[in-house]
Amino acid sequence: MADGAAITNDAFLRACRGLPVERVPVWFMRQAGRSLPEYRAIRGEGSMLESLARPEVATEITLQPVRRYGVDAAILYSDIVVPVHAIGFGVDIVPGVGPVVEQPFREARDLNRLRPLDPETDTGYVLETVRNLVAELDVPLIAFAGAPFTVASYLVEGGPSRSHALTKRLMHSDPGLWAALLDRLADLAIASIGSQLEAGAAAFQLFDSWAGALATDEYRRFVLPASQRVFAELRGRGVGASSGTEGRGRVGAQETAPGIHFGVGTGELLELLAKAGADVVGVDWRVHLDDARERLGPDVAVQGNLDPAAVLAPWPVVAERAVEVLDRNAGRPGHVFNLGHGVLPETDPEMLERLVDLVHGYQAAP
Amino acid sequence: MADGAAITNDAFLRACRGLPVERVPVWFMRQAGRSLPEYRAIRGEGSMLESLARPEVATEITLQPVRRYGVDAAILYSDIVVPVHAIGFGVDIVPGVGPVVEQPFREARDLNRLRPLDPETDTGYVLETVRNLVAELDVPLIAFAGAPFTVASYLVEGGPSRSHALTKRLMHSDPGLWAALLDRLADLAIASIGSQLEAGAAAFQLFDSWAGALATDEYRRFVLPASQRVFAELRGRGVGASSGTEGRGRVGAQETAPGIHFGVGTGELLELLAKAGADVVGVDWRVHLDDARERLGPDVAVQGNLDPAAVLAPWPVVAERAVEVLDRNAGRPGHVFNLGHGVLPETDPEMLERLVDLVHGYQAAP
Repeated sequence: MADGAAITNDAFLRACRGLPVERVPVWFMRQAGRSLPEYRAIRGEGSMLESLARPEVATEITLQPVRRYGVDAAILYSDIVVPVHAIGFGVDIVPGVGPVVEQPFREARDLNRLRPLDPETDTGYVLETVRNLVAELDVPLIAFAGAPFTVASYLVEGGPSRSHALTKRLMHSDPGLWAALLDRLADLAIASIGSQLEAGAAAFQLFDSWAGALATDEYRRFVLPASQRVFAELRGRGVGASSGTEGRGRVGAQETAPGIHFGVGTGELLELLAKAGADVVGVDWRVHLDDARERLGPDVAVQGNLDPAAVLAPWPVVAERAVEVLDRNAGRPGHVFNLGHGVLPETDPEMLERLVDLVHGYQAAP
Repeated sequence: MADGAAITNDAFLRACRGLPVERVPVWFMRQAGRSLPEYRAIRGEGSMLESLARPEVATEITLQPVRRYGVDAAILYSDIVVPVHAIGFGVDIVPGVGPVVEQPFREARDLNRLRPLDPETDTGYVLETVRNLVAELDVPLIAFAGAPFTVASYLVEGGPSRSHALTKRLMHSDPGLWAALLDRLADLAIASIGSQLEAGAAAFQLFDSWAGALATDEYRRFVLPASQRVFAELRGRGVGASSGTEGRGRVGAQETAPGIHFGVGTGELLELLAKAGADVVGVDWRVHLDDARERLGPDVAVQGNLDPAAVLAPWPVVAERAVEVLDRNAGRPGHVFNLGHGVLPETDPEMLERLVDLVHGYQAAP
């Protein structure tokens, strides 16, 4: 592990743990990426999978929004298909489309194409990027991976899908094979996030981006067990928890990495996302934050929930809607400000700069 | 108006009105279409807009699922962009993509491209199809149109969109222009549905398919007023309500056409969809039907809510999930069985046949 710059700003971690903070921490999903001119300048042509496999490039891209916006957390520039790509399943990320799978997952023998991840060998570039970042950053770095359901959806559909019809067909028509698939993908998520934490990331987010396509009972039966295992196996991990070397506990000894769980359109699933084992549940813009907190109860922190499309409006509208999000939380501990989904490519970076200032300057009414 | 075959099966209309029925009525959104071999045989190549403009073809396509499945209602084979296409806005439906707009709506002068609809002149083929159908059918025919927001989204985005970012930007950055746009589109929906009812349709559905992309407050401020006006102006219309000629009241004198309102992912919006003035609110599969009824209260009927992807599973799974939907309604009056969104193209028609039989044979536990 790198010696590491000290985390001098721990507001994000404190909020994840439900502790009081001096100012509400903020970061943005997809803060590193297409909306930034400095990203477009360094990114070049070719597959995103190539650019994130170059540690110096991935490090710089991860740092860009931290420098520009002054956000309270960095998130690794990577993608949820990196582990399946790294073990050779045959995935690429096509610009304007998303992840595309050459030979989709169809039958039991496709399980053989999902061998365990050896993080140092298969994704050494990720870990090198994490170590670079930890040496540079004075805010926490968020590790991440795709949740078993959402990664499975890409593997089964062969690409992005609106209906997730083939995925749902597989879970219902062959529950045993489905469970085996999710089990493999849970292993990949655990290995990937686990290695990022070991390399110095201070928190992690499990993206179940498309879980909102599922009926509640479907989620409970076919998805929850695998996601629960991911959170259970990662519980207690983190640099602060590793035995040994003095000084590794950058955020305070015995402080383990909090876990965030997120998907869009999950209003009906919020309680179940928490039940999966998350410390923090991401909420999209469809649910008022006070309603979300009521559904989740006092022991779970929340992250969100300004509509990414709202940021395209004129500043007074952006400001009004951001304040509404903050007001609905009403100063309760355990709120990480974020968008309700990733930054849209057409976003004006200046709006996000102003938004960070607004969140940092906000004081809840007493 | 055609003399009209009598509606001998009024279970659908009774359920829409919250009246007791002998058996639960059922129809399927997109029941006419790509899942049927007899549709693919007659449909031919070319734009869907061409096929639905040929009354003999549109009539046959509308009748196909009624014959095959024995559903309790027919829905006109048409599309929500037909009125804007008919007045020359420049819209086509591209196979595999959806509606595509040549010159998207951008500024105030684009309002001039949205003149009022003269149904007999602009969409005479639709009315001829409706009259043909009314002369043939012994179940009610459902008229429909796109709700102002969802049609606006296509016009502003230029095609299907996941984020609806440009549409949201317009509503927030120029609320006056947005209101004027929705006003024009409300007029189109009223003229279109009004003319279909006048021609003999017995009920109508207003599709606000993508309203679920909106935050609650956004819906309330920017969408609800226009949708409310559509329902208000159509209230009291229908063949039974027209003055004059004996025998026009095919569903019983003074019986006016019930209105259904539907969008996907609208769990947080259900009460507002009812508030728009609907007699029936369509519910997608994300919300349990008993929860939906609780949110909606006793005065509103519900339609739904089996996941269209569920129908791709083996029959025992389909049956189990369909019974769960029925059990959750628990025999209360005011339930129209349907899928929670349109029939997927890859659906096996035999599954829908069996599903109709199952729904018709269902008896709620006493």
